[in-house]
Amino acid sequence: MGNIRIVLVGPKFEGNIGAVARSMANFDLDELYLVDPCEIGDDAYRRAKHGSHLLRDAVTVNTLEEAVGGCSFVVGTSGIVTKGENNYVRVPMAVSDFAEKMNDFEGKAAIVFGREDIGLLQDELARCDLLITVPASETYPVLNLSHAATIVMYEISGCVAASPTPAEPDERERMMRFFDDLLDAIDYPEQRRGTTAVMFRRMLGRAVPTKWEYATLLGVFGDAAKLIKKNE
Amino acid sequence: MGNIRIVLVGPKFEGNIGAVARSMANFDLDELYLVDPCEIGDDAYRRAKHGSHLLRDAVTVNTLEEAVGGCSFVVGTSGIVTKGENNYVRVPMAVSDFAEKMNDFEGKAAIVFGREDIGLLQDELARCDLLITVPASETYPVLNLSHAATIVMYEISGCVAASPTPAEPDERERMMRFFDDLLDAIDYPEQRRGTTAVMFRRMLGRAVPTKWEYATLLGVFGDAAKLIKKNE
Repeated sequence: MGNIRIVLVGPKFEGNIGAVARSMANFDLDELYLVDPCEIGDDAYRRAKHGSHLLRDAVTVNTLEEAVGGCSFVVGTSGIVTKGENNYVRVPMAVSDFAEKMNDFEGKAAIVFGREDIGLLQDELARCDLLITVPASETYPVLNLSHAATIVMYEISGCVAASPTPAEPDERERMMRFFDDLLDAIDYPEQRRGTTAVMFRRMLGRAVPTKWEYATLLGVFGDAAKLIKKNE
Repeated sequence: MGNIRIVLVGPKFEGNIGAVARSMANFDLDELYLVDPCEIGDDAYRRAKHGSHLLRDAVTVNTLEEAVGGCSFVVGTSGIVTKGENNYVRVPMAVSDFAEKMNDFEGKAAIVFGREDIGLLQDELARCDLLITVPASETYPVLNLSHAATIVMYEISGCVAASPTPAEPDERERMMRFFDDLLDAIDYPEQRRGTTAVMFRRMLGRAVPTKWEYATLLGVFGDAAKLIKKNE
């Protein structure tokens, strides 16, 4: 995702910077800017793991303005959601809604995370075109810096789980016939056969079995029905 | 969320346990079980912050079986998604799909996270009724333990962002009249007035302003139109 820059403003713990770098690698992000960060040493690199190249290549600057140079959209993050609506500076959007909006966005966006203790300052928030937040507990809404950053990256990332091939419709119907054969083999009561078949169909519907799962279960049912018939 | 238990199996770094406790507090979860954990000391408590009571009240047991006692659904987590579909033990569901399924679920569910280095063992995975994963980079899919746990908790939590009151339809129409008055005051060309009004309406539609934002902008437009008229 070359159109996203992650900006950390005034991070105080190097471990957090390292953890953010690791998460960036986890979600295919590769541009990290640090505004006036703490010193970066062994702990940061240990936490960065396979994201250590992002830590090494991070751009360190003195001000937020420098960090968002070249970005056409500056997104601030805040764990503290204002109750009063007249504090415009702190009216945020939920991160999942933001992720949807990002799909339509073409330019480069900077996503800006504040200090561990006090977050972004009022004038830094004022520089942001949009403020986002991670919806969390009313009693304790403030997440650890790298956790908040990771959830934002997770939401905006285009990563999808590799999903196994679902079975074809004719495999499903074959399974239903095998199940029916099995009911037949065990002399299942005629009057309950219809509802039991529907129950099984619905179970398959909820489970969405893969080709392999179907094939394995077909084998079991087929063998069982054959053995029962043979032993009769 | 009293129906979710978080289970960490064999965590090796106390900092991760503390970080998970903090995130549990962030997402209103309150039941933590630890299977054969490392020693828990200052670093864990420092990372737990306002979740330290969860760390103190965590139940430590020797086996996964003890940790999932009383749970009617055991959900495993894995950062490694198998390519082969015939390894049934490792076919996972994306965490967002799982979060939707959880809405329909009534009993108590244990969500089980494995060791930092090798995750859950084959026999531990086999005990799980469902396996979930956080979709991530193909080149580096393995998240830090507390990050993975935080994303899962974020997805299943019912937390929503406190959203400010959106403006009423009649406020929107009042704004459009004020905008029209402003165009009038600056002698905006008649032939472009219609499209400019539509443009402004669409901008408001995308921005979904709050009552306060409307009121403030109405004030600005109203004052501007009045001053222009007066100076004529």
